Amino acid sequence: MARRRKQLYKQKLGASPGTLTYIGQEIEHATRIKRIEYNEANYQIDESGKLTHCQIPAPGTSLISWISVDGIHEPPVIETLGQHFRLHRLMLEDIMNTLQKPKLEQYDDNTLYLTLKMLRYNTTTQEVDTEHISFVLGRHYLLSFQEEREGDIFKPVLNRIVASAGKTRQNGPDYLLYALIDLIVDNYFLVLDQIGSNVDIIEDRIVQNTAGQPTLATLYGLKRELGVIRRSVWPLRDMLGLLVREESPLIDAHTNPYLRDLYDHVTQVLETIDSYRELMASLLDVYLSTVSNRMNSVMKTLTIFSAIFMPLTFIAGIYGMNFKIMPELEDPLGYYKVWLFMGLLAVVMIIYFRRRGWM
Amino acid sequence: MARRRKQLYKQKLGASPGTLTYIGQEIEHATRIKRIEYNEANYQIDESGKLTHCQIPAPGTSLISWISVDGIHEPPVIETLGQHFRLHRLMLEDIMNTLQKPKLEQYDDNTLYLTLKMLRYNTTTQEVDTEHISFVLGRHYLLSFQEEREGDIFKPVLNRIVASAGKTRQNGPDYLLYALIDLIVDNYFLVLDQIGSNVDIIEDRIVQNTAGQPTLATLYGLKRELGVIRRSVWPLRDMLGLLVREESPLIDAHTNPYLRDLYDHVTQVLETIDSYRELMASLLDVYLSTVSNRMNSVMKTLTIFSAIFMPLTFIAGIYGMNFKIMPELEDPLGYYKVWLFMGLLAVVMIIYFRRRGWM
Amino acid sequence: MARRRKQLYKQKLGASPGTLTYIGQEIEHATRIKRIEYNEANYQIDESGKLTHCQIPAPGTSLISWISVDGIHEPPVIETLGQHFRLHRLMLEDIMNTLQKPKLEQYDDNTLYLTLKMLRYNTTTQEVDTEHISFVLGRHYLLSFQEEREGDIFKPVLNRIVASAGKTRQNGPDYLLYALIDLIVDNYFLVLDQIGSNVDIIEDRIVQNTAGQPTLATLYGLKRELGVIRRSVWPLRDMLGLLVREESPLIDAHTNPYLRDLYDHVTQVLETIDSYRELMASLLDVYLSTVSNRMNSVMKTLTIFSAIFMPLTFIAGIYGMNFKIMPELEDPLGYYKVWLFMGLLAVVMIIYFRRRGWM
Amino acid sequence: MARRRKQLYKQKLGASPGTLTYIGQEIEHATRIKRIEYNEANYQIDESGKLTHCQIPAPGTSLISWISVDGIHEPPVIETLGQHFRLHRLMLEDIMNTLQKPKLEQYDDNTLYLTLKMLRYNTTTQEVDTEHISFVLGRHYLLSFQEEREGDIFKPVLNRIVASAGKTRQNGPDYLLYALIDLIVDNYFLVLDQIGSNVDIIEDRIVQNTAGQPTLATLYGLKRELGVIRRSVWPLRDMLGLLVREESPLIDAHTNPYLRDLYDHVTQVLETIDSYRELMASLLDVYLSTVSNRMNSVMKTLTIFSAIFMPLTFIAGIYGMNFKIMPELEDPLGYYKVWLFMGLLAVVMIIYFRRRGWM
Amino acid sequence: MARRRKQLYKQKLGASPGTLTYIGQEIEHATRIKRIEYNEANYQIDESGKLTHCQIPAPGTSLISWISVDGIHEPPVIETLGQHFRLHRLMLEDIMNTLQKPKLEQYDDNTLYLTLKMLRYNTTTQEVDTEHISFVLGRHYLLSFQEEREGDIFKPVLNRIVASAGKTRQNGPDYLLYALIDLIVDNYFLVLDQIGSNVDIIEDRIVQNTAGQPTLATLYGLKRELGVIRRSVWPLRDMLGLLVREESPLIDAHTNPYLRDLYDHVTQVLETIDSYRELMASLLDVYLSTVSNRMNSVMKTLTIFSAIFMPLTFIAGIYGMNFKIMPELEDPLGYYKVWLFMGLLAVVMIIYFRRRGWM
Ligand SMILES: [Mg+2]
Ligand SMILES: [Mg+2]
Ligand SMILES: [Mg+2]
Ligand SMILES: [Mg+2]
Ligand SMILES: [Mg+2]
Ligand SMILES: [Mg+2]
Ligand SMILES: [Mg+2]
Ligand SMILES: [Mg+2]
Ligand SMILES: [Mg+2]
Ligand SMILES: [Mg+2]
Ligand SMILES: [Mg+2]
Ligand SMILES: [Mg+2]
Ligand SMILES: [Mg+2]
Ligand SMILES: [Mg+2]
Ligand SMILES: [Mg+2]
Ligand SMILES: [Mg+2]
Ligand SMILES: [Mg+2]
Ligand SMILES: [Mg+2]
Ligand SMILES: [Mg+2]
Ligand SMILES: [Mg+2]
Ligand SMILES: [Mg+2]
Ligand SMILES: [Mg+2]
Ligand SMILES: [Mg+2]
Ligand SMILES: [Mg+2]
Ligand SMILES: [Mg+2]
Ligand SMILES: [Mg+2]
Ligand SMILES: [Mg+2]
Ligand SMILES: [Mg+2]
Ligand SMILES: [Mg+2]
Ligand SMILES: [Mg+2]
Ligand SMILES: [Mg+2]
Repeated sequence: MARRRKQLYKQKLGASPGTLTYIGQEIEHATRIKRIEYNEANYQIDESGKLTHCQIPAPGTSLISWISVDGIHEPPVIETLGQHFRLHRLMLEDIMNTLQKPKLEQYDDNTLYLTLKMLRYNTTTQEVDTEHISFVLGRHYLLSFQEEREGDIFKPVLNRIVASAGKTRQNGPDYLLYALIDLIVDNYFLVLDQIGSNVDIIEDRIVQNTAGQPTLATLYGLKRELGVIRRSVWPLRDMLGLLVREESPLIDAHTNPYLRDLYDHVTQVLETIDSYRELMASLLDVYLSTVSNRMNSVMKTLTIFSAIFMPLTFIAGIYGMNFKIMPELEDPLGYYKVWLFMGLLAVVMIIYFRRRGWM
Repeated sequence: MARRRKQLYKQKLGASPGTLTYIGQEIEHATRIKRIEYNEANYQIDESGKLTHCQIPAPGTSLISWISVDGIHEPPVIETLGQHFRLHRLMLEDIMNTLQKPKLEQYDDNTLYLTLKMLRYNTTTQEVDTEHISFVLGRHYLLSFQEEREGDIFKPVLNRIVASAGKTRQNGPDYLLYALIDLIVDNYFLVLDQIGSNVDIIEDRIVQNTAGQPTLATLYGLKRELGVIRRSVWPLRDMLGLLVREESPLIDAHTNPYLRDLYDHVTQVLETIDSYRELMASLLDVYLSTVSNRMNSVMKTLTIFSAIFMPLTFIAGIYGMNFKIMPELEDPLGYYKVWLFMGLLAVVMIIYFRRRGWM
Repeated sequence: MARRRKQLYKQKLGASPGTLTYIGQEIEHATRIKRIEYNEANYQIDESGKLTHCQIPAPGTSLISWISVDGIHEPPVIETLGQHFRLHRLMLEDIMNTLQKPKLEQYDDNTLYLTLKMLRYNTTTQEVDTEHISFVLGRHYLLSFQEEREGDIFKPVLNRIVASAGKTRQNGPDYLLYALIDLIVDNYFLVLDQIGSNVDIIEDRIVQNTAGQPTLATLYGLKRELGVIRRSVWPLRDMLGLLVREESPLIDAHTNPYLRDLYDHVTQVLETIDSYRELMASLLDVYLSTVSNRMNSVMKTLTIFSAIFMPLTFIAGIYGMNFKIMPELEDPLGYYKVWLFMGLLAVVMIIYFRRRGWM
Repeated sequence: MARRRKQLYKQKLGASPGTLTYIGQEIEHATRIKRIEYNEANYQIDESGKLTHCQIPAPGTSLISWISVDGIHEPPVIETLGQHFRLHRLMLEDIMNTLQKPKLEQYDDNTLYLTLKMLRYNTTTQEVDTEHISFVLGRHYLLSFQEEREGDIFKPVLNRIVASAGKTRQNGPDYLLYALIDLIVDNYFLVLDQIGSNVDIIEDRIVQNTAGQPTLATLYGLKRELGVIRRSVWPLRDMLGLLVREESPLIDAHTNPYLRDLYDHVTQVLETIDSYRELMASLLDVYLSTVSNRMNSVMKTLTIFSAIFMPLTFIAGIYGMNFKIMPELEDPLGYYKVWLFMGLLAVVMIIYFRRRGWM
Repeated sequence: MARRRKQLYKQKLGASPGTLTYIGQEIEHATRIKRIEYNEANYQIDESGKLTHCQIPAPGTSLISWISVDGIHEPPVIETLGQHFRLHRLMLEDIMNTLQKPKLEQYDDNTLYLTLKMLRYNTTTQEVDTEHISFVLGRHYLLSFQEEREGDIFKPVLNRIVASAGKTRQNGPDYLLYALIDLIVDNYFLVLDQIGSNVDIIEDRIVQNTAGQPTLATLYGLKRELGVIRRSVWPLRDMLGLLVREESPLIDAHTNPYLRDLYDHVTQVLETIDSYRELMASLLDVYLSTVSNRMNSVMKTLTIFSAIFMPLTFIAGIYGMNFKIMPELEDPLGYYKVWLFMGLLAVVMIIYFRRRGWM
C-alpha cells in the first residue's frame, strides 16, 4: 500500500488542488448507499442506492434524511453527492483522503464537516486498524461516509431508529450525529481494553523477572499502536470542545449535554492512553534495571568460581612441575598438606565473598 | 472485574445513551439512604431509607436537606431519586459510572453536579483503593452518593451536625458540600503520607547500596499507584478553581474562602505527588549507576585474579612439560628460582593494578 | 560552505544593516527571470529576463503579473527589483539570506512577504536538501524567488496556467500564491515518505535483533535530518494560521478554504515528523535493551563454561601432581573413579544452571 | 516529626475546618513578640510582649506599627492576635501550618496575607532548612510571624529603622514588607551559592573520572534539596508578579519598582536552580558513560590476558601429557621449539588486539 | 571570583536596597567615557571623559547625544551619571550588577532601561565569556554601559557615524540603540558558529566510533556553555517582542521593521542553540549504545576463547594425570587420537558460535 501511496503522491504533485483521488486499501465492491428518512411518527429506508434520490430535503419537511455511504473509493459517487448537496471540492477531497486527520470544518452556516477515525484492534496482527469516517451535517440531513469494510458499523443506531428505541427519533440530525460518534467512541474503550490486557501481561512478566526479547518486541508494538490511537483520538477532543462551546445553528441546545458527555469520554480515552504510555515507560526502566541486576549476578558467579579455582589450579600446577629437586614432593605427608592448604584457601575466599555480599 | 467490565462495554455498544449500568465491584447489600434535615436550631435524621421521603424541599423552608446515599449499584434507586430531583439522565449515568473521572457540571441554575474520588491506601496489597463519590447541590438540599463499602466515610461531618460543632449548622448546603470534600481531601494527605514512608524506605536502601530486585518492584508499584492518585486528584484542582472564580447562585460568598483553602490543599497534594515522582526518577537513576558501579567492581576483581594467576599457571604448566631435554629442570636451584620469578611477576601485576586504581 | 559563511559573518559585523550579501551555495549561472501575465481569457510569458519589464502593474488592469525569479545570488538583480516594486531593504536582505527561517511579514497594506523552504531528500547522501523560497504578494502581482538549482520547481503551476487547467486562471495572485505553496507542501510528503521507508528498515532490523553500529549511525542521521525538516516546516503552520485568521485585503475570501486546507496538510506533516521521532526514540530504547540482553546471554555462556571446566581442570591438575605418596594414583580403578566423579560434578553444575534459568 | 505529623493528620480528620494546630518542630520557648512603632521623626520598641498592646492603630495616626511575632506554636497567642486584628480563622490556620506552601491571599480591602519560606543551608547535614514565615499587611501596620529558632532573622531591618538608615523610615508598611522579603530573598542567593560550590566539586570529580558511589549519593542529595528550594521559591514569583501588576490600595506606587526588582531577583534564583538541575542531569549522563567506559577497559584487559595465556597454557598442557609415544618430547630441540612457537603466538595475539584498538 | 562574590553577598545582606556594589571581575583601569553628538549634518566626539559634560540634552536640540561608558566598576561614576540623567537607584544597581539577567524596564515615559549580554567564545578555555551591557534610552540621548575589557565593542557603529555610512546619522537614538544591539546579536552567530564546529568534530568522532572519555568531557563542556548562552539570549527575544509590539514614544515607527528583524535573528539564535542541544542529546545516546556494542564484542571474544580453550586444556590435563593405570596412555596412537578429538571439539565450538552470530 505504501508503494501505491507514493505513486499517487507523485501523480498528485502536478495535479490541480481539489482533484479527487482515493489512496486507501484497494476495494472491489461498489459503494453501498442507504437513505433513511424518519421523524417521531414514521421512518422509511431506501436501499436502492440511486444517487438521484439523494438530495437536500425540501425546506419545511418534518422528515430527517440520513444518507449512509459505505465506501469512499469511487470518485464519481462522491462527486455526484457533492453536487447534489453543494459541497466544497476540498471537502470532497477530505472525504476520500484516508490519511486526513480528524477535524471539524464549518464551510458555511448550513453545513458542518466532521471527520474522525473508527478503530478496531486486530488481535492476530496486534495492530490497530483505522477506518476513515466523515459526516456532513445540514439543516435537515446528515451524510455519513465510511470505508468499505465487512459489515456496517452504524447498524446499532439504525436498529434503534427502526425500533424507535432511545431518543433518536424524537430529535434532529444533530442528535443522530451524536449517536453515531458515541458509537465510535464506545469502540475506543474496547480497543483500549485489549491494549490494557496486553500491558498487564507485560507488566507481570517484567515485574516477575521472566521477560526477554519477545516481551520487548511486544512492548514496542504496543507503544507504536498507542501512538496510532493517540494521533487518531487527540484532535477529536478539541473538535467536540468546539462543538460544545460554539453555538452553531445546526446544533440544538438539548443536544449540548450529550456532546459534553462525549467530550468527557474522549478525555477519559486520552487519559487512559497516557497512563498506559507512562506505565510502559516505567516498565522499560524496570526491565533495564532487571537485566543489569541479572548480569551482575552472572558476573558474580563467574568471579567467585574464578577466584576460588584459579589459585587452587595454580597450586596443583606447581606440584605438577618436573624439577629434579622439589623438597615438598618427597614429604610423605606433602599430598595431604597440599589438600589442607587448598581447603583453607577456598574457605578464606568464600568468607571474603560473603563479606562483600556476593554470596 | 476487568472481564465483567468488558462484557458490559460490549453490551452498552448497542444500547441507547443514558442507559443506567453499574460496572464497579459486585455488591450484595442494598443501598442505604439517610435523610438529614437541619437548621441552626434543630436537626432530624431519617434512616428509614424510604425513597418517597426524598424530595426537593418546599420553597421557603429554613431547613437544609441532606440525602446521603450509600450504594450506587441499584439502577432503580438512582432512577427514582433522579425523577424526584429532576436530574438529567446523563447525570444519573455518571453517578453510577465508577470509571468516571472527577468533574463539575452545571446542568441548570438550580443544580450543580460534582464527582470525585475517595482514596484509601491498602497497606497489605500496597495499592490505592478508589471510591466513586458524587454530589448534587440544589438550592436547599445536597445529595451525596458513595459506593457501598464498609462504614460511612461522611460520619465525622454527621457527628458535627449532631453535636452542633463547627459552622455546618449555621450555613447552607454549600458549606456542607465544602465540609464533605474537605474530609475527602484530608484523606488524600493520609494516603500520601503512607506513600511517602515507602519512598523513604526505598531511598535509604538505594542510597545505602542494599537495594535489589524487590526494591525495584516496590518502586514500580509506588509509581503506578502515584499515577492512580494523580489522575484522581488532578481534575479536582480545576474544579475547585472554577467554583472559586465563577459566582454561582448556589454558592454563598462566605463559603468562598473555604473553597479557596480547599483549592490550596489540593494544590499541595499535587505538588507532593510530583515531588515523589521526581524523587523516584532520581532514585532509579542512582540505582542504575550503583548497579553499574558494583558490576565494575566485580569485573575488576575477576580481572585482577585472572591477570595474576593466568601467567603463573602458565609458567607452572611450562615446567610440567615432559620434554626430554629441559635444562632448567636439572638446575638444583631451579624450583626456587621459579618461585622467585613468580613472586616478582605477581608483585609487578599488583603494582600495575594499583597504579590504574583498580585495587 | 561553513568556512565561507564564517567569513561572510565577520565581514557583515561592521557593515550597516540592510547590506545585501549572498551566503548560500556558490552559483555560476546568471539569474533567470520569467514574467507571466494572465487573466481568465489570455496569458503571455516573457522569458527575456529584462528587469525593466518587471514593474508594479498599472492600477485598473485585469491582468495578473507573476515574476518568477530563479536565482538569488546577484545583489544588483534583487536590488533593482526591490526599487521597481518599492520593497523594504530588510525584505531584500531576507530574500537573499538562505539561512532565514520561514516567516510571514506584512510591510504595508499592499505587500505581504512570505518565505519558506523547498525540501528534497538526497537518497545518496541521505541528507535533506533545503532551498530558500520567497514570495512577495501585491495587489495585482506575485514575485517568487528561488535558489538557482537544476530545473524550475514551479513548472507544474506554470503548465496549468498555460493549459488553463484548474482554477488558477480564474483567480487572483493570492490563489497563485496558494498553488505554489501547495506544490512545495506536497513535496514535504514525498520527503517524509522516504524518511519513513528508512525508519521501517531500521525498525525491522532492531526488532528482529540484527542491528549493529551502522543501523545506529543511520538512526542518528535520520534523527538529524528530521530535525532539519521540522525546523523548516514548524514556522509554516503558524504563518498559514495567521493568513487564515487575519483578513488581509490581499487575500480573497474564496482563497480562505484553500489556505485552511494547506494549514491542515502542514499540520499533518508535523504530526508525521513527531510520530517518526517518537518511534525512533522507542527503537533506540529497544535497541539498548537488546544489546544488554545479548550481553547477558554471552556472559551466561562464559560463566557456564567456566563453572563446569574450572573445577574439572582443577581435579585433573590435582592428579597431575608429582607427590611421592598419592594413594589414589595407585588404585587400579582410580582413573575410572575420577572420570565418574568429574561426570557427576558436571551434571550437578548443569542442573544448577538450568534451575537458575541460565541454560 | 513525621510520626507526630501523622497523628495530627488523623486527629484533624474529624475536626472542624479552622481548628488551630501546630505541626512543626517541637518548641520549648514561649512566643517572643516585639512591637515597633515609627515614622520619619520617631520610633519606639516595645519588647514587653503584652498582647493587649497589639491592636489595629487608630485611624489618623502617622505612626507605622510593626508587630514581629517570633514563634507560631502557641494557638492561644495566634488566636488573640487574630481577634485584635480581625483576621479570618483560615488565615490563622495558615500562619501556624508550617507545611503551607507560599501564597498571597487578599481577604478584604484592608488586609493582605502573604506567606513564604526562609531558607538556610545546613552544611553538616547538607540539607536545606525551611522556616515558615507569614506577613499580614494592613493600612498602618504589618504583622510578621516566624518560627521560633535561634536569633531573629529580621534584625538587619530593625537595625536600619533604629539607625534611620535607608528609606524604611520615610515609607509605609508596604516598604517595610518589601525590605523584609528582600532580606529573605537575599538569603536564597547565599543558599544557592553553597549548593553551587557542591555542584562544582561533583563536576570536577566526574569530569576528571574520580567519582564513585559517594559522589552519586551527594549528587542525589543536592538534587533533592534543590527540589525543596524550588518548591519553596517557585510560588513566590507569581505572588510578586501579582503584587506588581494588581494595584492594591495597600501598596504605594513608589514601592512598585522595588517589588519589580524583587521579582527580578526571584526569577534569577529560579533560573539558577534550573541551570544547576540541568548541569546535574548532564553530569549523571557523563558519569554513566564514564562507568561504562571504565568497564570496557577492564573487560579488554581481562580478554587480552585470557586470549594470550589460554592458548599458551593449553600448549603447555599438551606437552605435560603422559602418552607413551609423543615424538616431539624426544626431539632434543623440542623444548626450545615450543618456546619459539609460544612466543610467536603471543606476538600474533598482541598485533591482533592492537589492530582492534584494544591495546 | 566566586569567593569574592560570596563576601559581597554577605555584606549586602544587611545593607539597604539600592546600595551600589560591583561584583564582576576586578578591574584596574579607570572608567572611559566618550560623548558623541551628531545629526544628519554634523558630529563631534568628546573623549575628555568629563562627567559634567554628560547631561540631558536641552529640549529643542536637533543633536543626538550618545554617552558611551566603558567600565561599570566605579560606583561614584555611575552615581553621578544617575544624578545628571535622573535615573532610579535600582536602575543604577542593575547597571553595575554583572549577574543581572537581560531585561527591559520602562521607569517612566522618558527613559527606557535595557540590559543584555555581549558574548565571546574563548577558544583556549573553550568557555563563553559574557559581558554585561546596559542601555538607557531617552528622548534625545542614549547611554551605553559596558564592562571594562580590551577594546570597545561599539567601534564599528562609531565608525559608521563618523563615515556617515548607513542610516544612523539620519535617525534618532532609537535607531542607534538598534544598531548597537544588532552588533551584539551578530556576535552571537559567530559564537554559535564556533560551538557548531566543535559539535561537528564530536559528531564525527562518535559516529565513526573513535570517541572516548575526552570527547565526553568536551560534550559536557559544550552543553554547559550552550546553557550559559541560552540563559543570556532567551530573555532578549521577549524584550524585543515587547519593543516591537508596544508603541513607546521613544521608538519611532520607522525603527520598528529593524527591531522586528532583530527579533527574527534572536529567534534564529535560539533555534540554533536548541538544535545543537538536541544533536548533542542524540550523540550521547549513540555514544552509549556504541560503548555497549563494543563491550559486547569484547565479551564475545573472551567467551569464544574461553569456550574453545577451557575444554581443550581440561583434556590435556586429564592425560597429564599420573594414575598408574590409564589405558589410553599405552595406546601407540593415543597422542594422535587426542589431537584429532581436540581438533573436532574446536571445530564444533567454532560452528556453534558462528551459528549464534558471534563470529
Ligand atoms: Mg495537493
Ligand atoms: Mg492504520
Ligand atoms: Mg458514550
Ligand atoms: Mg502511521
Ligand atoms: Mg455510551
Ligand atoms: Mg457521562
Ligand atoms: Mg482503583
Ligand atoms: Mg482542609
Ligand atoms: Mg488505572
Ligand atoms: Mg489553609
Ligand atoms: Mg528515565
Ligand atoms: Mg537513563
Ligand atoms: Mg546585521
Ligand atoms: Mg532579516
Ligand atoms: Mg541543508
Ligand atoms: Mg495540498
Ligand atoms: Mg542545520
Ligand atoms: Mg484537505
Ligand atoms: Mg527514554
Ligand atoms: Mg534510556
Ligand atoms: Mg482540614
Ligand atoms: Mg525542610
Ligand atoms: Mg534584593
Ligand atoms: Mg519535602
Ligand atoms: Mg537522563
Ligand atoms: Mg538586596
Ligand atoms: Mg535589580
Ligand atoms: Mg561567564
Ligand atoms: Mg542583524
Ligand atoms: Mg553560570
Ligand atoms: Mg536520553
